[in-house]
Amino acid sequence: MEETPEVAVLRLGHRPGRDERTTTHVGLTARALGADSVILAGSAGGRRETIEDITDRFGGPFAVETTDEPIATVENWEGTVVHLTMYGLPIQEVESEIRNVAGIDTDADDDFGRLLVVVGAEKVPFDIYEAAAFNVAVTNQPHSEIASLAVFLDRLFDGCELDREWVDADQTVVPQAEGKQVTEPE
Amino acid sequence: MEETPEVAVLRLGHRPGRDERTTTHVGLTARALGADSVILAGSAGGRRETIEDITDRFGGPFAVETTDEPIATVENWEGTVVHLTMYGLPIQEVESEIRNVAGIDTDADDDFGRLLVVVGAEKVPFDIYEAAAFNVAVTNQPHSEIASLAVFLDRLFDGCELDREWVDADQTVVPQAEGKQVTEPE
Repeated sequence: MEETPEVAVLRLGHRPGRDERTTTHVGLTARALGADSVILAGSAGGRRETIEDITDRFGGPFAVETTDEPIATVENWEGTVVHLTMYGLPIQEVESEIRNVAGIDTDADDDFGRLLVVVGAEKVPFDIYEAAAFNVAVTNQPHSEIASLAVFLDRLFDGCELDREWVDADQTVVPQAEGKQVTEPE
Repeated sequence: MEETPEVAVLRLGHRPGRDERTTTHVGLTARALGADSVILAGSAGGRRETIEDITDRFGGPFAVETTDEPIATVENWEGTVVHLTMYGLPIQEVESEIRNVAGIDTDADDDFGRLLVVVGAEKVPFDIYEAAAFNVAVTNQPHSEIASLAVFLDRLFDGCELDREWVDADQTVVPQAEGKQVTEPE
């Protein structure tokens, strides 16, 4: 593909104390698996530095934004909105359509889209279900918004995200069959 | 496939307080995405009831076990051991071999294997790197053991895990384009 859409992840419903690590995992998963940015709603914004620190060390580009009006962010999004929820339609049934709408598929039209992927921690307001073009379930079982996001992004990008190259990295991990190897530029 | 291997997930390195939710997410992701059991090491065992409660409500079979000797669990595992780590070999390069060894591929030999997937929270002892047949990276970037586990299982089972049927569920979610629908047996 010559051009790719802008893919952002919106983290909703962060509960201070309880969700610190899961919100960090959401942000780092968004970065590692091909999204361009994460938007942290409300008190989730406290995880901003932790995520930006990883980008500083391991490369980018990846943006971290915050919002105090996540519902407005969703309703005013100029592009497609996908909400990941165990109550939604099975990902295996809608992923092709989403990839097409988002301009990931090679047979998509020329209007490369902007895709917002919404993941919640606690109960998500019904406004989000209504505003989303797609409510998508990675299984209809309760598990993890981090896991759902990971599977969604891997399928959205059809694995291409695994080959991404990073810019301005201070550290680069060199894959090893056993052990650890990290290189740092001079 | 007529028979499937036994796939277990071992959760290592749980830090009380800090990792409560992430360990729960590991267990629920293992269950939702096709593993047969999760083994919780040390203080991770405190999440056992939370995970079992989901199986009681949403169906099984899925087993939750605990161990105080996780390195022995790995070293004595009768089957293949995969350790998910950002320092390992790219999943896209080793997944076919792992699927073959684990008896997931249709061209595997008749010895259906037992596969143990190890995921850590904090730093993992080097014994685990040595004991694992495969040290596997879902990107060589720092992100989330939950995300890595999710992508690994989805690729291991080639999406078949998404169509799994559940036994003895008290609640079943009916997929919806918008909103929530849950049915309970009479």
